[in-house]
Amino acid sequence: MVGLTPLLTPRTVAIVGASKTPGELGNVVLKNVIGYGFTGGIFPVTSAEQEIEGIICYKTVRDIPAQVDLAVICVSAPNCPAVVEECGQVGIKSIVVVSGGFKEIGPEGLELEKKLLSACHKYGISMVGPNCVGIMNTHVPVNASCSSVFPYQGDIAFISQSSAMLTSIIDWSKSNHLGFSQVIGLGNKAHLDEADFIEAIAKDPMTKVILCYIEDVNNGKHFLEVVTRVAKQKPVIILKSGSSQAGAQAVSSHTGELAGSDLAYETAFTQAGILRARSMTELFDLAVCFSYQPVPQGDRVAIVTNAGGPGIVTVDAIENSGLMVARFDKETLDALRANLPTQANIYNPVDVLGDAQSDRYGFALETVLKDPYVDSVVVLVCPTAATDPENIAQTIIDLNQKYPHKPILAVYMGGAVLAESAKILARARIPVFTFPEPAVNSLAGMVKYARIAETNTQGEEIILDDVDQNKVKAVFYDVIRDGRSVLLGSEAAAVAEAYGIPAAPIKLSTSPDEAVALAEKMGYPVVLKVASPKIMHKTDVGGVKIGLTNSDQVRDAFIEIMENVQRYLSNVIPYGIEVSKMMPKGTELIVGMTKDVQFGPLIAFGLGGMYVNLLKDVSFRLAKGLTREEIQAMISETKAFTLLRGYRGERPADMISLIDMVARTAKLVTDFPEISEMDINPLFAYEDGVSALDIKITIQI
Amino acid sequence: MVGLTPLLTPRTVAIVGASKTPGELGNVVLKNVIGYGFTGGIFPVTSAEQEIEGIICYKTVRDIPAQVDLAVICVSAPNCPAVVEECGQVGIKSIVVVSGGFKEIGPEGLELEKKLLSACHKYGISMVGPNCVGIMNTHVPVNASCSSVFPYQGDIAFISQSSAMLTSIIDWSKSNHLGFSQVIGLGNKAHLDEADFIEAIAKDPMTKVILCYIEDVNNGKHFLEVVTRVAKQKPVIILKSGSSQAGAQAVSSHTGELAGSDLAYETAFTQAGILRARSMTELFDLAVCFSYQPVPQGDRVAIVTNAGGPGIVTVDAIENSGLMVARFDKETLDALRANLPTQANIYNPVDVLGDAQSDRYGFALETVLKDPYVDSVVVLVCPTAATDPENIAQTIIDLNQKYPHKPILAVYMGGAVLAESAKILARARIPVFTFPEPAVNSLAGMVKYARIAETNTQGEEIILDDVDQNKVKAVFYDVIRDGRSVLLGSEAAAVAEAYGIPAAPIKLSTSPDEAVALAEKMGYPVVLKVASPKIMHKTDVGGVKIGLTNSDQVRDAFIEIMENVQRYLSNVIPYGIEVSKMMPKGTELIVGMTKDVQFGPLIAFGLGGMYVNLLKDVSFRLAKGLTREEIQAMISETKAFTLLRGYRGERPADMISLIDMVARTAKLVTDFPEISEMDINPLFAYEDGVSALDIKITIQI
Repeated sequence: MVGLTPLLTPRTVAIVGASKTPGELGNVVLKNVIGYGFTGGIFPVTSAEQEIEGIICYKTVRDIPAQVDLAVICVSAPNCPAVVEECGQVGIKSIVVVSGGFKEIGPEGLELEKKLLSACHKYGISMVGPNCVGIMNTHVPVNASCSSVFPYQGDIAFISQSSAMLTSIIDWSKSNHLGFSQVIGLGNKAHLDEADFIEAIAKDPMTKVILCYIEDVNNGKHFLEVVTRVAKQKPVIILKSGSSQAGAQAVSSHTGELAGSDLAYETAFTQAGILRARSMTELFDLAVCFSYQPVPQGDRVAIVTNAGGPGIVTVDAIENSGLMVARFDKETLDALRANLPTQANIYNPVDVLGDAQSDRYGFALETVLKDPYVDSVVVLVCPTAATDPENIAQTIIDLNQKYPHKPILAVYMGGAVLAESAKILARARIPVFTFPEPAVNSLAGMVKYARIAETNTQGEEIILDDVDQNKVKAVFYDVIRDGRSVLLGSEAAAVAEAYGIPAAPIKLSTSPDEAVALAEKMGYPVVLKVASPKIMHKTDVGGVKIGLTNSDQVRDAFIEIMENVQRYLSNVIPYGIEVSKMMPKGTELIVGMTKDVQFGPLIAFGLGGMYVNLLKDVSFRLAKGLTREEIQAMISETKAFTLLRGYRGERPADMISLIDMVARTAKLVTDFPEISEMDINPLFAYEDGVSALDIKITIQI
Repeated sequence: MVGLTPLLTPRTVAIVGASKTPGELGNVVLKNVIGYGFTGGIFPVTSAEQEIEGIICYKTVRDIPAQVDLAVICVSAPNCPAVVEECGQVGIKSIVVVSGGFKEIGPEGLELEKKLLSACHKYGISMVGPNCVGIMNTHVPVNASCSSVFPYQGDIAFISQSSAMLTSIIDWSKSNHLGFSQVIGLGNKAHLDEADFIEAIAKDPMTKVILCYIEDVNNGKHFLEVVTRVAKQKPVIILKSGSSQAGAQAVSSHTGELAGSDLAYETAFTQAGILRARSMTELFDLAVCFSYQPVPQGDRVAIVTNAGGPGIVTVDAIENSGLMVARFDKETLDALRANLPTQANIYNPVDVLGDAQSDRYGFALETVLKDPYVDSVVVLVCPTAATDPENIAQTIIDLNQKYPHKPILAVYMGGAVLAESAKILARARIPVFTFPEPAVNSLAGMVKYARIAETNTQGEEIILDDVDQNKVKAVFYDVIRDGRSVLLGSEAAAVAEAYGIPAAPIKLSTSPDEAVALAEKMGYPVVLKVASPKIMHKTDVGGVKIGLTNSDQVRDAFIEIMENVQRYLSNVIPYGIEVSKMMPKGTELIVGMTKDVQFGPLIAFGLGGMYVNLLKDVSFRLAKGLTREEIQAMISETKAFTLLRGYRGERPADMISLIDMVARTAKLVTDFPEISEMDINPLFAYEDGVSALDIKITIQI
């Protein structure tokens, strides 16, 4: 992707399809380019007019006597490809196609869209849209869009896949005194997508926080690569909708069943350090807080209030959101005790009482701001006979400037009486809320971001060079040649072995003698199990014999199983009988893999065994580039971790082997994208080592 | 409690401690009584003035020449008891003590408060407060409070334990065009509490929905009794704060550990049919919806929108909140197809497109309202060039009147452009939101309430008359005489047996011969376990022998255990050795009891075994009056239920025996409040019957 500077901060703009007729797209866009303070060259392109709004028109883009940074295309869809071609020929590198009538209307439109795209590729053009609102930059300023509203200047960038959302939000933002740096309508995302803009806007010095509304991502790999980088520089907050609509794919593995439809996005967002907003309210509450206030250094929140009840509500919200109610320094307590009325509560929440005015609020607020054990402050104001809400607002503003490293959020609980103060606060960039809960929720998002930003590295990727790819290929080759997609147990064990994944020995035997020989080599006790992809419930047909402790038992079991299968399923000819060593019982885990169309393989880890789908104690990570630290984090998110650390006096499990085993599984599924599903369940973890008891691998060529 | 009609709808009001001095409590309250349209008799009581505000003053309440329905007391705390006494003497039955200086200031104030209460009891007075804002009724109208704001008329009652919350909310409500029927400040709740007002307001024909903000309840039993009844008539929505502050009590049982501090309230609220608001925003969103719209008949939601993105966001919210996206009738689809533009989406969400005006909105809205498979509608409006938001608002209003049984919620996504329409909608009692999620969340609350209201009965309480209370008393007597509080396993089994709870046989033996005799009687295999309250970890000292299959093994085990205990813990003299029958393994469950100060014993049910605290698969119910239906519901909330129904081809467990066993446990702990904690873990459930393997009972006399 070439740089997007000319696109996002154009010095010259051509409007292709400019029109004199009010309401027509080419007229709306032209008026927008003219009407919001753009000082660069404006070049309407149309063969129908000599001039519009007093500006000279050009018949084609060829005729424009200057270099055009950005062409906004408003001609009807069928005429667009030719226009783009022409833009390419004259060296215009950035275009916004506002016109609709492309992919969104069906196959015919899709064809046109493909033509646009190939022209872009041919000439190295960066294209926004088609079928988009356009782009706005309040700092150039330029409104290269068909939007009837233009936002106030600010430091929030907003990227939206929905046009309606975009215009709705701008309208809403103006009533809420909220400013944007840039607003981007993605439209059909034929060329430039969310990742391209996130990357470009990350470098924009006028943008402090990046908001996105998306329904899907275009390219999971690119998106992740970009956002993981950007999220360390600026908060990226995404509202991803359509999570409930993702079609449930048919899955046959435990891991697949556990994953659910929204999981890949959830996992990818978390791993990339994206803050995921759960609602539109949350998206913009977070935006305001990041825009207005510094990121807190930690999770310890002080509360200053003039009433008890709202203080308690705030404490509840803090504890529910995982933040800490700050415990004050002795010095703070002494100062509060010495200067507040006796009835005031000096412990957090600091209750300055109903008769408090701005002086007392100011004293309490400054005292807690100075406390080294306080990272942020929520100030609650309830209207009382004594309250001077506007003076209190000014006091908050002054102290926010004096202590610029600790965020202050205001909660003004009331309506008309406090409305003026709320405006004063918002203008001075103090986030102000009507109720405590959303304030605390936003603070929690900021603290979460602080942790994302301070993690300097996601850790080192684990290098594993002792794997035998050829052995895996050989097994897969046999499976394919056999017309199967599901590996036999012995085949899966061989694959695991090739990648250094410790698996319980399991081998295929085709005669009683061979079974005995294998058992003698493995050591007793062993299990015999009929090997056939056609027999689903092996136990039900007498196809399994467990706890065999000597050669006679093995021999008899082999014969008995064959007879049983013969009796119940006379038309099935088994591959033979698998001999596997019975392993001592360890902590039962599951390690598995499921696949996402956008983000590729996801590794699952959790409590295993028969009840895995019942207990649902599983966490997920993207397999690609999985680091030791991420594996550790994934394990520690589960209840299984409590067991592994040594539950109720048991000895802790071998975490080093476990992490290594997960890393090897991740490498296996990354190296072989043809593995479509994989379950290791149970995996036994011991004090010393781990062992995969049952491995199921499905491949899809 | 006497009727609260004179208190809540007074015809005459005395203001005791009335004052001429602006700002003084007695002046504020008097002006409030005068100033908000009260047409009944007003009697200021003060010895300092002849008249105030042109109204004749009386020296004492004795001097008032009429019957006083309500006395509002504003004199200083030390003078209050005498005033209340005097009120009693002249037959005033309702008082509001606005004055502060009672329990909230410490022991001295508490003494004064007790005096007020005893005067109330002596004369049969109903008292609000002390230390409260007072009460307001917009339909009388009367403002018998010290609040500087008085709400608009409406049908929402608001009861608040926090004074600041109350005045803040009234102020806020006026900016949001929200009206109240009654507003009650509870203050210190020395006499009347939330339950009394909920009960009284349930009968108020002017109130449609009851809101409460509380930090605790005064009397759990009374509260539950009242609210369970009221919740079937009117929605009761409670924001209960302080949930994070409840001190964690020291607990020694699994059940206690699992319960956590907020659980009793959560359980009680659910069982009583209360809607618990999670935030102040949610509390008032719900209030507006219940106040303005009918309760939906079901959970199927239709969406009408003029933009795709917000429609998807709404679908997400619907699915996340457990509601259903309605599937339209064929007739509906045909009508939409025939009358909407081709590009419109006729499936739910119905996308009427960005150029839709009120006529098209009206057609689509009426069509889905007529659909028998639609229970409620969310209408989304985004500002576009074509939108006529005010006409659309009027269309919504008209159709809401035409189809009064299906709630309509409007989402007007924008600011200034849509502000006027939002006002029009709110005035016509259509709830209007800026973003879709809170609208859907409120709808989910209404659907939940519909289910609460339609449940005609909570089911029949289970009568168990085959229990042997004397046998339990005899066991407890022995335990107490022995200076213990924890029962031995054999004692707990005897208690269980007395209540018909099937327990694995366990008996205490004091000699090898006796152990053998017991084992022979029970049948093999058996377990021997040292019986001593002083030995915590019996296995560690060699105090347990399992899997004994004949008399010789039992005899040897008895001797070995005694020797082991002698060797490791020479100073401990065991009670003997408990012989218990080893039971076949069933589904491992836990049934337990923990106690709450307010709400009494809570029964727990869930997955049992060693990992019970790790898995935390437990649901709770109040033990008292537990019905078969509630037990069934409690069981079905857990993952254990999936196992019990027959997981992965296993046979289902004996639910009848299980429910009976839970009912018996509930009866045991209700009959014997001295049981402070109880754990049955594991309880084995079989295809035929259940068996309590390990019962732990702690008593506290």
